Amino acid sequence: MSEHFNDRFLRACRRESVDVTPIWLMRQAGRYLPEYRRLREKHPMLELCTSPELAAEVTLMPLQRFELDAAILFSDLTIPFLAMGVPFTLKENVGPVIARPLRTAEDIHALRVMEPEGDLPFVMESIRLLRRELNVPLIGFAGAPFTLAAYLVEGGASRDYSRVRALMYSQPQLWNTLLSLLAENVVRFLKAQIEAGAQAVQLFDSWVGAVSPVTYRRLLLPVMQRIIGELKPLGAPIIYFGTGTASLLEAMRETGADVIGVDWRVPLDEAWQRLGECAIQGNMDPAAMLASAEVVRAEAQDVLQRAGGRKGHIFNLGHGVLPDTPAENVQVLIDTVHTGIE
Amino acid sequence: MSEHFNDRFLRACRRESVDVTPIWLMRQAGRYLPEYRRLREKHPMLELCTSPELAAEVTLMPLQRFELDAAILFSDLTIPFLAMGVPFTLKENVGPVIARPLRTAEDIHALRVMEPEGDLPFVMESIRLLRRELNVPLIGFAGAPFTLAAYLVEGGASRDYSRVRALMYSQPQLWNTLLSLLAENVVRFLKAQIEAGAQAVQLFDSWVGAVSPVTYRRLLLPVMQRIIGELKPLGAPIIYFGTGTASLLEAMRETGADVIGVDWRVPLDEAWQRLGECAIQGNMDPAAMLASAEVVRAEAQDVLQRAGGRKGHIFNLGHGVLPDTPAENVQVLIDTVHTGIE
Repeated sequence: MSEHFNDRFLRACRRESVDVTPIWLMRQAGRYLPEYRRLREKHPMLELCTSPELAAEVTLMPLQRFELDAAILFSDLTIPFLAMGVPFTLKENVGPVIARPLRTAEDIHALRVMEPEGDLPFVMESIRLLRRELNVPLIGFAGAPFTLAAYLVEGGASRDYSRVRALMYSQPQLWNTLLSLLAENVVRFLKAQIEAGAQAVQLFDSWVGAVSPVTYRRLLLPVMQRIIGELKPLGAPIIYFGTGTASLLEAMRETGADVIGVDWRVPLDEAWQRLGECAIQGNMDPAAMLASAEVVRAEAQDVLQRAGGRKGHIFNLGHGVLPDTPAENVQVLIDTVHTGIE
Repeated sequence: MSEHFNDRFLRACRRESVDVTPIWLMRQAGRYLPEYRRLREKHPMLELCTSPELAAEVTLMPLQRFELDAAILFSDLTIPFLAMGVPFTLKENVGPVIARPLRTAEDIHALRVMEPEGDLPFVMESIRLLRRELNVPLIGFAGAPFTLAAYLVEGGASRDYSRVRALMYSQPQLWNTLLSLLAENVVRFLKAQIEAGAQAVQLFDSWVGAVSPVTYRRLLLPVMQRIIGELKPLGAPIIYFGTGTASLLEAMRETGADVIGVDWRVPLDEAWQRLGECAIQGNMDPAAMLASAEVVRAEAQDVLQRAGGRKGHIFNLGHGVLPDTPAENVQVLIDTVHTGIE
């Protein structure tokens, strides 16, 4: 880590000029790192997320190896469920398993609204610990309401989230109740993270690509606008990310997010043309990181060239770093991005 | 079933005028039908696919209930693997499980090229049986090479097909070898189905939405063009279907397919504007079929209105009928489509 605070990432979020393109990676602290795997042998995932010292230690791991331009709090999308009275487990190689998926109005009305400092103090404590250590910006995060609802209704990850889509069609009022409640939790959680020191926040709407733009505008956009409207006055840039969003980009832009995270399915030049005046995060295919250093360089160059030196580009993969990624390729990627268009 | 041959579906494939919009449904013979579930209690899936009489019986089930405008041979995307020397099982609620996923060049070179009439005689026999019974067109089908390769390389269904994407980046030559071999099998299989009596064929590229348009054009389009070029002279309309294809539509059009199948993620009017002069199949969200009859009617009307009476619209869902779909809603859907824009 360099001695001075590196604000490249925050400058790019605000579409200000930067010396080189900033880069961070979703799941930059994850299974591809041997030191992470060693720590995970000793501690289950939930313990890492709920212990401030361990979460901070994991958050810092990739920054001790690589010149990344931002840190992201090590946590999990499901952590708010702990505060909402939703029992769940995190199953290896599967993801969250909700003990009793939401099925009825009663299930939904029983969900609690969190008091973050009281219910999830370890998250804010991790953030405070990390701010003392870091000389790059710290990103806080939460799942966006659709993606949280998708887990709660399906009972976990799914291939096409048809059950949650069916709920949206069949019980739109109940859906709106669920979304409002999740939105209130997301706002409270992200406000608390920003107040504790997170300098930017990312809303992960990882599975929103399952819905059509018509459904998005009718049943998701209003709630996303409300969340982002409530967070904006706090001043921390807001990144809104999803996968499979090729037909949703314009609608996602209307949420008011400062930065739109795009996956590899839309070429970055085309995404930018469609999104207009906003910052963009992305979007190299994480699967390319499993190939040779030469392929990593070529794919990174392709993304940089499509970004074309526009202000407001934050380099990232189109989704999280895959567990089989060689750590050396992460080094190659960061060097390529920091060197710039060749 | 009416007494005269109903060629609405074939006319729409050729963008000729039709009296009403034709409709058929992916998985129209499936778990949502009580008579199908009863038959499945007695016979495992593979037995239904490999017995000509049983496959024909299942194919006909939905036509005995509903005025559908086409039948699709009851079979499975994995059936060609029987002829290629790939052991697999079909696991309930999971899908295909490949006993030894392809990992090496040797694995790929060991795949056989099929002789359809010798290796899979039951498929062509089912088609011949069905042609004697049907007074609507019979659709044959095969998985497209990417989707077959995805199963073979991942070992089954996957959330994001990152392993197959990684293979495409890391070993493009080996990938091309695999795709060529699959393409040869697909061409032989579909030719045999057409020669046995299938009046149209659908290429299911169900999981192709996992790749970027750049990758698609580089590593999939040439092989799709070859397949469709070889099938075209036989005269049966060719439908090319995928899900999550919002960024791939233009490239899919370049394959030369007569009909492009679109899922619910792209509004049909927008899809048509992008695809230009071709027939389109789709695209109501199958999850809407789990709601009330009122919702089914409204969503079907929305699709019809977006199609706007253009020639070449074949109504379908954006993916297969979901198992929990009430059969009454299928009746409501068909009536709505045949009644037309209100």
